[in-house]
Amino acid sequence: MSAKLQDLDPTIMQPFPNSKKVYINGVPKREISLSDNNPPVTVYDTSGPYTDPNVEIDLHKGLPHIRPRRAKSGNVTQLHYARRGIITEEMEFIAIREDMTPEFVRDEIARGRAIIPANINHPELEPMIIGRNFLVKVNANIGNSATTSSIAEEVEKMVWSIRWGGDTVMDLSTGKNIHETREWIIRNSPVPIGTVPIYQALEKVNGKAEELTWEIFRETLIEQAEQGVDYFTIHAGIRLAHIPLTAKRVTGIVSRGGSIMAKWCLSHHTESFLYTHFEDICEIMKAYDVSFSLGDGLRPGCIADANDAAQFAELETLGELTKIAWKHDVQTMIEGPGHVPMHLIKENMDKQLELCDEAPFYTLGPLTTDISPGYDHISSGIGAAMIGWYGCAMLCYVTPKEHLGLPNKHDVREGIIAYKIAAHAADLAKGHPGAQIRDDAISKARFEFRWHDQFNLSLDPMRAIEFHDETLPKDAAKTAHFCSMCGPHFCSMKITQDVREYAQKKGIGDVTIAVEEGMKEKAAEFKQQGSEIYQ
Amino acid sequence: MSAKLQDLDPTIMQPFPNSKKVYINGVPKREISLSDNNPPVTVYDTSGPYTDPNVEIDLHKGLPHIRPRRAKSGNVTQLHYARRGIITEEMEFIAIREDMTPEFVRDEIARGRAIIPANINHPELEPMIIGRNFLVKVNANIGNSATTSSIAEEVEKMVWSIRWGGDTVMDLSTGKNIHETREWIIRNSPVPIGTVPIYQALEKVNGKAEELTWEIFRETLIEQAEQGVDYFTIHAGIRLAHIPLTAKRVTGIVSRGGSIMAKWCLSHHTESFLYTHFEDICEIMKAYDVSFSLGDGLRPGCIADANDAAQFAELETLGELTKIAWKHDVQTMIEGPGHVPMHLIKENMDKQLELCDEAPFYTLGPLTTDISPGYDHISSGIGAAMIGWYGCAMLCYVTPKEHLGLPNKHDVREGIIAYKIAAHAADLAKGHPGAQIRDDAISKARFEFRWHDQFNLSLDPMRAIEFHDETLPKDAAKTAHFCSMCGPHFCSMKITQDVREYAQKKGIGDVTIAVEEGMKEKAAEFKQQGSEIYQ
Repeated sequence: MSAKLQDLDPTIMQPFPNSKKVYINGVPKREISLSDNNPPVTVYDTSGPYTDPNVEIDLHKGLPHIRPRRAKSGNVTQLHYARRGIITEEMEFIAIREDMTPEFVRDEIARGRAIIPANINHPELEPMIIGRNFLVKVNANIGNSATTSSIAEEVEKMVWSIRWGGDTVMDLSTGKNIHETREWIIRNSPVPIGTVPIYQALEKVNGKAEELTWEIFRETLIEQAEQGVDYFTIHAGIRLAHIPLTAKRVTGIVSRGGSIMAKWCLSHHTESFLYTHFEDICEIMKAYDVSFSLGDGLRPGCIADANDAAQFAELETLGELTKIAWKHDVQTMIEGPGHVPMHLIKENMDKQLELCDEAPFYTLGPLTTDISPGYDHISSGIGAAMIGWYGCAMLCYVTPKEHLGLPNKHDVREGIIAYKIAAHAADLAKGHPGAQIRDDAISKARFEFRWHDQFNLSLDPMRAIEFHDETLPKDAAKTAHFCSMCGPHFCSMKITQDVREYAQKKGIGDVTIAVEEGMKEKAAEFKQQGSEIYQ
Repeated sequence: MSAKLQDLDPTIMQPFPNSKKVYINGVPKREISLSDNNPPVTVYDTSGPYTDPNVEIDLHKGLPHIRPRRAKSGNVTQLHYARRGIITEEMEFIAIREDMTPEFVRDEIARGRAIIPANINHPELEPMIIGRNFLVKVNANIGNSATTSSIAEEVEKMVWSIRWGGDTVMDLSTGKNIHETREWIIRNSPVPIGTVPIYQALEKVNGKAEELTWEIFRETLIEQAEQGVDYFTIHAGIRLAHIPLTAKRVTGIVSRGGSIMAKWCLSHHTESFLYTHFEDICEIMKAYDVSFSLGDGLRPGCIADANDAAQFAELETLGELTKIAWKHDVQTMIEGPGHVPMHLIKENMDKQLELCDEAPFYTLGPLTTDISPGYDHISSGIGAAMIGWYGCAMLCYVTPKEHLGLPNKHDVREGIIAYKIAAHAADLAKGHPGAQIRDDAISKARFEFRWHDQFNLSLDPMRAIEFHDETLPKDAAKTAHFCSMCGPHFCSMKITQDVREYAQKKGIGDVTIAVEEGMKEKAAEFKQQGSEIYQ
């Protein structure tokens, strides 16, 4: 099977309008130029070399290496270095990327409050950080299943995902060519790649969960770690005693990995090999610096099951496992729900911080209602924004196809933008330094009728232009001091500007003063008339 | 100009799949039938007679009258009756619609905590209530502007809006034929119609705000009240002294009505006629039972301007005006923002409850970031869900075209569904009695692979079917015990069911017991081996 550059849609590699890639000490950012002498706005850039016209892309060669591979002896994790006071190249890179000091980055890693998923065998990676004192991140899931997709499509989905702002990508393939698909994705990915190794292990035993063994799983972990996978979802928190707690649930166990392990535990009437071999797994993780994403196999699959005993029992186990992982200097984040009504979201975040000692939280939504198939990116975007504000470090996107089918390119774009909105809304609410610069710039552009600047500063400039042009396609309309929504007489922004101009013409120079002058005159009249409003 | 039934798309009047209109003492609801002996689920229905195949629709005649017109002498408001202990027909209707007692409805109205927008000249209306102890409502804006739209299109947008769940519709037309458009809309609308009368008044003075007078505005109010408009947005809260507070804003005044009145105030150096004639306005409102929607002319138009002095100064005035309206027994709700970051949303709700003595709040979003043109239904849906949870009674929808152009039918559907999600998520979070029934039913259907039931219980069944069929179009797939997302081996719901079946086969009948049995056996073994997990 082959995937060629020409198989990919070339438009997915074009720079955004009026944007150019800039490198600050080698760290890529996107600079958006504005009109009328407004200073450019520089934004975080996940899109990698694909949007740099100076980089030649050859999918067969993979991306240029920007990190050296490290010796595979001993413990090579970022946590290991951080705890010893060493600031790595990756930490330096991230400090520039996030506008923080390298020492702050190191300290957050050492504390376990942030992770840098960066397998030593993924030298194509532009390092990024996941932690609640940094920008909130978004993960996009891709991957084929037995019923759909080709390798080229999956690579294209990865490039497409990072174009719209995906900070990490999980390859959830379960079908054929699972190893080869992953190889193509990693070699061409500038963002961390996560997987759920139990999926491939299950393929090796022809889908029979009860035939899984520690040996098959171990072999799979090593195979994937060798390829350069940056984080593994491992459902080690499901214990035999938790399973009965799901028996009365409306939707039982909805995590694929969770249900596989539950089936295994029941078949063998024993604790899972993920739990009993957890320290063996840590040994593999630290040899490659693969980060744990401890899976929430018992997350609620509907509003009725939210925050129940099964969910929180597993979270408690995940807290115990976090401490074991940390003992080995293995970087760790914790996965979270799922389906949770708004009033129960904060409890999730609070319990996670407490039980897992502030290890980063990484949630799937949560969806705030069950009745929105076709629009679950919206119902879950609400929950994602809220939990991001409360302290969640990374949000796993949900696409409009959730519960209905596998996402196509359109769905991936819709899902990522919905989650970029949630993540950015969370950054604003947390008062993240600098987060509001882009909002202020776009609002100023809006007020000054700089239409192109407004489009270019938005999360999806192409969509903004397309929608604007549907009603007012003429070029002249892009300099018009009104738009199709209200027409010229009713444009509030135009009237506000008229008001300010009016005040200036009166020679007073500022509305504030103009009105104060007027008020003084009126106040005199008013007093003469007896100061009654309703005369 | 004419608008014929045949001008309208007939599909907008078809009942939803497996749904039928049922009447409980004349109050319409939608009953969704389910398969496999699951009881039907009955849901609130805003769609009016259009979705009842037994009602003949003739746009020229308008809808059948379901309320008698009342004498236009004295005070005819629902608040007037409620305060005198009278339970009106409208209150009885709403009690059935909301599953509350008529006395509770009356009491909430008497307290000013809820309103029933129901002009005595709108006999086609199916009465509904807006108040935070009832289901959270959604408003959809329609209306032509100088640059777009025809009458038939606007009527179709109204029918389309209520089909997807719009609880009220605001006609914000500013172009030609403003009176005739409104007449068509009201005569064919089973939901309350709101307007912003200053828009029509401004047309009468050819768009010159400074030429507006109380007399022209008064004449416009009476003209619209006679037609049957159910609530008026009136920007009486903008006082001359507030205007200077907007001078340093990033986006100044973004409300159309607000900017018109600000211009008038500055031109005349006096308080607005809306403020000085507020009691005269009350006299008109109470003669028809038109409800106030006191406009927030100084709402923030961007994150930077949120919760500023201008916004809260106006809110304080709206609180004063509420008390004056109540003195006249005029029903009143208060409009709110706008653009507000998540951490500042609650302050809006708390201040509104305090300053306006719990009069219902009706907000536009709020948008939680400024950088999402093309997706503002999502950024605002986040804020809408949150403020609904905090106590907002009605959410004015925002469509994907916000800031870019006027919404078409597709945008209206997207906007309403996003807001039905927000409203329903808020109902769940508030613990509204019965709100979770639909979530539980759809989740049970999902777990039992009853695909059609899952589609039919969703907010947009047609979208759910369309998305499902994109990847698995065969009819057989709709009874399949897995879907295209995971394929047969990886379907967690299938595995969970397998687990339960496995337990039953073992003759124990219940997973709980099955596992407990297993645990006992294991526990015995475990102890023999020394009770060490990591051996």
